[in-house]
Amino acid sequence: MQLQRYKAKVSKIRYILISHLHGDHFFGLIGLLNTMSLNGREQELHLFAPPDLSDVITTQLRCSRTVLNFPIRFHPLESGWHGVIIETNLLTVATIPMEHGVPCFGFLFREKEKLRRINKEVMPSTLTVADILALKEGKDLYYPDGSLQYKNESLTLPPRKSRSYAYCSDTRYNENIIPYIQGVDLLYHETTFMKDQEERAWARYHSTTTQAATLAQKAGVQKLLIGHYSSRYKELEPLLQEAQAVFSPTQLAIEGQTYIIEEL
Amino acid sequence: MQLQRYKAKVSKIRYILISHLHGDHFFGLIGLLNTMSLNGREQELHLFAPPDLSDVITTQLRCSRTVLNFPIRFHPLESGWHGVIIETNLLTVATIPMEHGVPCFGFLFREKEKLRRINKEVMPSTLTVADILALKEGKDLYYPDGSLQYKNESLTLPPRKSRSYAYCSDTRYNENIIPYIQGVDLLYHETTFMKDQEERAWARYHSTTTQAATLAQKAGVQKLLIGHYSSRYKELEPLLQEAQAVFSPTQLAIEGQTYIIEEL
Repeated sequence: MQLQRYKAKVSKIRYILISHLHGDHFFGLIGLLNTMSLNGREQELHLFAPPDLSDVITTQLRCSRTVLNFPIRFHPLESGWHGVIIETNLLTVATIPMEHGVPCFGFLFREKEKLRRINKEVMPSTLTVADILALKEGKDLYYPDGSLQYKNESLTLPPRKSRSYAYCSDTRYNENIIPYIQGVDLLYHETTFMKDQEERAWARYHSTTTQAATLAQKAGVQKLLIGHYSSRYKELEPLLQEAQAVFSPTQLAIEGQTYIIEEL
Repeated sequence: MQLQRYKAKVSKIRYILISHLHGDHFFGLIGLLNTMSLNGREQELHLFAPPDLSDVITTQLRCSRTVLNFPIRFHPLESGWHGVIIETNLLTVATIPMEHGVPCFGFLFREKEKLRRINKEVMPSTLTVADILALKEGKDLYYPDGSLQYKNESLTLPPRKSRSYAYCSDTRYNENIIPYIQGVDLLYHETTFMKDQEERAWARYHSTTTQAATLAQKAGVQKLLIGHYSSRYKELEPLLQEAQAVFSPTQLAIEGQTYIIEEL
């Protein structure tokens, strides 16, 4: 319902990642799968989640006599296992260990190294398509007799920076994840509670604003996005202020908003 | 989410009746149960549904490590069995056989016979509370020596009519249910399709506007409420007109609206 409300293109979704099996993180999934099927989807869908989710989905499909129009490729995220789970032409996705009392996974999205860029200001108009691809891949150009035609650096600029995004929710404060999230462009970290609720946060395997900001600072990330607020907080500005007091480039995650990591 | 949107008092719900196990009729239930629990509910909840629903709920609770704060009393509606499933001081609820390709139950809500009403215009001020209860129950009043004091009819009016409501969804057109719904005050009957889609309706175990109205007429009900419209219909007025052409006291069921059966 939220995807519809915010006009997300559901048909373009190829992967669904479920961090853990608490109700607020997966009860809506069966409705989404049905909607995809009713909308005529035929493309395979990849579903990554703790193994028990398979039970939930198959029970619901069996009891409702539902046969989806498209195949689901289920990838169980086994407890304690961490590594790359998705690799495409453009990026990799790896899991990050969360500490939440039940098997729980964060996700690190990292763009692959990009090609060098042609410097259009100095590019000779005689170059062929093959020449351009070679230059983008960092090669020099040679004449047929083997002599150097152009040094790569004379015609290209360095590649754009590969962007990275870490999704960390739900979890207790856990410094062990710093090596995974070191220097990412954007860290999403849950802040269920404010700092005066630190004991409650620990007991319930959640984090506070101050903890998320401390982690962002220690890991040297570029920006922090906080979210997963307890429903007790009617105003979010105080949470933002607490986090910003520790790590100033912090933003509130607001449902339905889009956050763009600029390509530098 | 819809109950919240329309500000329904979820804490007052004691019974939940699930007609059948197609996704649009039960996928949201687990979310409702969780919300009830988070809201601190402790009162037992009665859940009536085809037996497989128990699997769905227990799998979801198990996989999400959820322990609800309140007990659920699950009453499996066994295929083909029909009769009274709920009886309170005020009403009974009985099942109605639906024809929907999977085990499916309609529900008939019928108020119990009510007490006679004291005619305040002629009531003597000397009556005791016990006298009034006796009169409401239809008894005459006697003096201590056994002689008649008041004939019941001289001080009372007939009881108010016991109201009845039949919920029939999802189902094909099926005249076999007429004995169950004969003369009810309000019949809710699904009209997934308009009459030009009668073949499609039959194939998919659904009904058309004209079929619902025909059934309402043959069963001599007071009013018909139509609903469960296919998402293909952006405008509902044409559905209403088709039904009213056969049975004029027809209304559209619109999500979030309340329909009151007046007490006559």
